[in-house]
Amino acid sequence: MKIIACLLAVLLLPIALADEVATTAEVMAGLSDADWRQPDPDNLLIMRVPQGSIVMELAPSMAPNTVANIKRLVRSGYYDDLAIIRSQDNYVAQWADPATDEDAARELGDALQSIPPEFERNADDVVLHSVASRDAYAERVGFVDGFPAASNGNKTWLTHCYGMLGVARSTEPDSGNGSSLYVVTGHAPRHLDRNITLVGRVLSGIELLSTLPRGTGPLGFYEDASNATPILTVEIDDDRPKNERQGLRVLRTDTRAFARYVASRTYRYEDWFVEPTGRIEICNLSPPVEQQGL
Amino acid sequence: MKIIACLLAVLLLPIALADEVATTAEVMAGLSDADWRQPDPDNLLIMRVPQGSIVMELAPSMAPNTVANIKRLVRSGYYDDLAIIRSQDNYVAQWADPATDEDAARELGDALQSIPPEFERNADDVVLHSVASRDAYAERVGFVDGFPAASNGNKTWLTHCYGMLGVARSTEPDSGNGSSLYVVTGHAPRHLDRNITLVGRVLSGIELLSTLPRGTGPLGFYEDASNATPILTVEIDDDRPKNERQGLRVLRTDTRAFARYVASRTYRYEDWFVEPTGRIEICNLSPPVEQQGL
Repeated sequence: MKIIACLLAVLLLPIALADEVATTAEVMAGLSDADWRQPDPDNLLIMRVPQGSIVMELAPSMAPNTVANIKRLVRSGYYDDLAIIRSQDNYVAQWADPATDEDAARELGDALQSIPPEFERNADDVVLHSVASRDAYAERVGFVDGFPAASNGNKTWLTHCYGMLGVARSTEPDSGNGSSLYVVTGHAPRHLDRNITLVGRVLSGIELLSTLPRGTGPLGFYEDASNATPILTVEIDDDRPKNERQGLRVLRTDTRAFARYVASRTYRYEDWFVEPTGRIEICNLSPPVEQQGL
Repeated sequence: MKIIACLLAVLLLPIALADEVATTAEVMAGLSDADWRQPDPDNLLIMRVPQGSIVMELAPSMAPNTVANIKRLVRSGYYDDLAIIRSQDNYVAQWADPATDEDAARELGDALQSIPPEFERNADDVVLHSVASRDAYAERVGFVDGFPAASNGNKTWLTHCYGMLGVARSTEPDSGNGSSLYVVTGHAPRHLDRNITLVGRVLSGIELLSTLPRGTGPLGFYEDASNATPILTVEIDDDRPKNERQGLRVLRTDTRAFARYVASRTYRYEDWFVEPTGRIEICNLSPPVEQQGL
């Protein structure tokens, strides 16, 4: 009986929330500090390019070995002076060692050359906070530790939504080591899910990647190296002076407040809408990020 | 019995196609001229900006009155010297009369000031060529006259995929008249479906819109008018000298060749993929466009 009551409560929750008839602006205005989380500074990458900084949060629970390798590369200075060598419209921006001569390519140092794929985790090993959505690519979708994810009940994986950070690889599945990374800058290429390791998402500065001139070579690679954007430095926030650290906070995805946020994106109560939709797709639910103390 | 055989054939078609085990490159290499269509030059808008030209195909079957109004505006020169006044990251680029003083705003001339909403059509009045996809927002998805569309069996509407062209409106549903247009430059904002009139899609030059600097004002409007991109001219291809017309062709969406294309995007047979997905979402199926005679 308890189980049935519990099931009923879960099933009726979206209806109850919908009854609140709150717009997104109203939900956001009603948030308290406890509804937000401050990302662990050891999981924040800050990539400086001439136009500004891009801040990315890593997801060690979904790709522990790859994330550890990326941190090794950051701390050895591997990424400093690399370049964004690819911008493909409605797809990805990618950075890597721009050296075309293999003899001139940087050494990985202490970092691993190959890593067993971390394309997915056993569903039992991670907690997926579900969102009610009929997804084209998976049975269930939701968030794991604040990152968009999908599951078939057996495996759980991060999803290629706008702004997600991934690890480029060649044909061998274990060839992605973090020496080349990409960010999704277009409509979610969900066919990449379970085929490549996602390691996090951009929290701020994505417009610096999404507005890059598109490369004119195959797959959006720049044919003329002078079009590449130089990367000045990549740092981990935890390694920086405390007074220079990012003050970003991210809306938690495991709270009643987030359920209200999801309801407000599902049912559009703003006056402008004539058709309230009543449906949502996981990549149209990007957990809000804000600068603290503003 | 005939009906059952027909149903079976339709149901088994994707499996039969999947048996072909063709990559997208292989499908494209096997196309014949009959698999392509040349858009009606009376439905092609060419918008010139300082960086190049954007070519858009209009969809009169889905929004006849709004498309007719846009053609009136083009032919009266209404759009010439307007500006792209908004670029919101992961959302839209929008153009309009940049005049902030209402007295200085352009007259619509012969064009209508308000048009009854053309957000959707009766399903019986249009032909939707279905694609097998479990869609978050609609019971059925596919293509109408080459444009991505969705249906609930009662109504059919165009979908807000990347590159779709829409008619901005204020709160009144009939206030969209074509004097301000937008193009989707991010992840499909499908909650706008059935809330606003879509009138076509970009066939070429979308990178000129998607890479625009993002506006820093609310909703991505430019706070400084000098950041707006001037529109030099907007013309209908049919009004231009024959030797200057667009030579674009678009893959037809009502053919067996297109079914093969869809299968190749659904099942990824390229060596790189370890998980062939077996699923597809409508906005990840953009009908290919190519320049003829290349």
